[in-house]
Amino acid sequence: MKTDAPSFEEFGPRPAQNLPASEYQARMKRLVKLVKRLKLDAVLFFDELTNYYFTGLSSDNGVLEVRAKDEPVYRTDFRYLVMAKRVAPWLKSEALWRPKDEAAVLEGIFEGARRIGYEGSLSAARYKSLEGALPSVEWVDVRSHLLALRAVKSPAEQQAIRKAVAYNDAVLQSWIPHRKEGETEWEIRTRLRGLMDYVGQGEAFDTIVCVGKNGAECHHEPDETVYTKGKPLLIDMGVKVDHYCSDMTRCLCWGKPAKLFLELHRIVHEANRAAIAAVKPGAVCADIDAVARGIIEKAGYGKAFAHSLGHGVGLFIHESPSFAPLCKTVLEPGMVITVEPGIYLPGRAGVRLEDMVLVTKTGCEVLTQTPHDLFV
Amino acid sequence: MKTDAPSFEEFGPRPAQNLPASEYQARMKRLVKLVKRLKLDAVLFFDELTNYYFTGLSSDNGVLEVRAKDEPVYRTDFRYLVMAKRVAPWLKSEALWRPKDEAAVLEGIFEGARRIGYEGSLSAARYKSLEGALPSVEWVDVRSHLLALRAVKSPAEQQAIRKAVAYNDAVLQSWIPHRKEGETEWEIRTRLRGLMDYVGQGEAFDTIVCVGKNGAECHHEPDETVYTKGKPLLIDMGVKVDHYCSDMTRCLCWGKPAKLFLELHRIVHEANRAAIAAVKPGAVCADIDAVARGIIEKAGYGKAFAHSLGHGVGLFIHESPSFAPLCKTVLEPGMVITVEPGIYLPGRAGVRLEDMVLVTKTGCEVLTQTPHDLFV
Repeated sequence: MKTDAPSFEEFGPRPAQNLPASEYQARMKRLVKLVKRLKLDAVLFFDELTNYYFTGLSSDNGVLEVRAKDEPVYRTDFRYLVMAKRVAPWLKSEALWRPKDEAAVLEGIFEGARRIGYEGSLSAARYKSLEGALPSVEWVDVRSHLLALRAVKSPAEQQAIRKAVAYNDAVLQSWIPHRKEGETEWEIRTRLRGLMDYVGQGEAFDTIVCVGKNGAECHHEPDETVYTKGKPLLIDMGVKVDHYCSDMTRCLCWGKPAKLFLELHRIVHEANRAAIAAVKPGAVCADIDAVARGIIEKAGYGKAFAHSLGHGVGLFIHESPSFAPLCKTVLEPGMVITVEPGIYLPGRAGVRLEDMVLVTKTGCEVLTQTPHDLFV
Repeated sequence: MKTDAPSFEEFGPRPAQNLPASEYQARMKRLVKLVKRLKLDAVLFFDELTNYYFTGLSSDNGVLEVRAKDEPVYRTDFRYLVMAKRVAPWLKSEALWRPKDEAAVLEGIFEGARRIGYEGSLSAARYKSLEGALPSVEWVDVRSHLLALRAVKSPAEQQAIRKAVAYNDAVLQSWIPHRKEGETEWEIRTRLRGLMDYVGQGEAFDTIVCVGKNGAECHHEPDETVYTKGKPLLIDMGVKVDHYCSDMTRCLCWGKPAKLFLELHRIVHEANRAAIAAVKPGAVCADIDAVARGIIEKAGYGKAFAHSLGHGVGLFIHESPSFAPLCKTVLEPGMVITVEPGIYLPGRAGVRLEDMVLVTKTGCEVLTQTPHDLFV
């Protein structure tokens, strides 16, 4: 057990803090370059988190318009406009059009435009409304380009993610001495969630808690299964701190683990270590996946590892690139990705060990500090 | 202060419970009727909560196919399939196709189909994939029909919503005696959220906490503004219990409120009471909105009430119908709707009072039990 984990005294509930304005401005510059490179007249984004990435502003109906030449504009309704001007005084913000005026307003804004970028995650109903308003425009889904933009984290982002990972470590390690026999999976989840609300801004995703054989269900929903000594406990958790996500999986055992569990744990641990050792700039994502998959296959459990090895993490819990058999992305310094091999034997046992790594100039830095052998 | 609020002794963290299978089966029957009425070959739904409504199953990649004649099919990946068969043995469940096989699989399933229903909330990228796979099919957005289906709640749903509302009352009333001077809005939100995790399955939406003038921002995000005696405190909160949502807004004052606050409170309270008194089967939604709006306008604050009077609540926090100037829906017994007039004076004060009501055969039942005059 790590003993220099942050003390909870440094924590206390508080709202998420933004990065300096220069961060959002630098991202916006990269977006303008993208608009030029793709020969678009503009991009029009509706996603709250995408718009937060480029502006530092959160509102559930914000619309971001960025052009090759003119100033970007952020539009939102009267409820958020004062906040927008206060938080991002460097950005032009205006009142959003009413839904019934969408066609007329867009016709005015985009007169003569031929190619406009949007995100494919936009709802079909809204997309059709845009198409109807501007029938002669070619709409270009730029989502894959946005994923690529976000994949490399700036030094300030890396620091924010380090903090989220350290706080996640602290939450798990603070909980362990207070675990109780007879608690249900759901109760454990609720306590961890309470700690995550306390140190950060809550869960980055629904915490997974699996007692015993439930660990064989990768996405088990915590239920009323009771935790007792000797049973393995799989916990997959991540706290959100200042908008950034963390993600970690550990398999604990309170007392001596069973032989099968130890065997699976040893193999998964070996796969995790070997994959991490292979992470460096220039490596291809699929090859990192293959390193871990090869070890698990060689041990005879290939079919029991049916998911990808890992995913990028940032403002979103799932970002690019992926450590997946089909991902041809070449690693670059500043990428932050999970490494999470697993073996799942339904009705018997399941083990997954997940760390977050940061690609550096020479290899990678393992951000997650919680030990793997939590058998105490 | 109500003294017969449920004691927290009856609570404890536990996962959401489903309604009896007969509920989901009855909904599915209504969906089959809709498919026939709209002359569709089938509907294809991808939304997790929509699919939960019809099946009682939750998985983040489930696809529900319902036809006029053949048996419905729920498809999901290997991680959820065992759960699907266990939770809904009455429903045919199968392994989901892989993304790369989508076109070929859909061609096979829907050979000869001409009209297929979908939800407009589906992502544009996925919608285009469907269109590409079945280019000769007419895709019909059935979202408004689904909203209408869900608007009338069955007796079992009404009971579930009653419980969520009672627990929401209990959370707020349990917190009041433990409020502290010097806490920030964010800290208050965190404590309320902890209570909601404890009694139910957490927040139905991000809790709004506004100290003093922040109440004038309808969707204020809790920040580090400090709560002290004498300042008004607006809290808009809802707990989710067994999948169903609740929603309530109260404006507390710890000590003697200021004159302006009391004036706004009196007007908003009058608007709330008058609108509720007008709710009955056969009434038109817009007319209920007009009752509250008329009172606020007459008092000279019409422009300071810039949102709708209320919205339906169920599995989703926002459902149909709406108490809104343009909503022509006629009220029916079994509808559950919020009544939440407000007056917002930026830089000065804001008041909103929100209750949930159930339309009955003769009028309505006010579900929310927390008193309005929390000035102690």
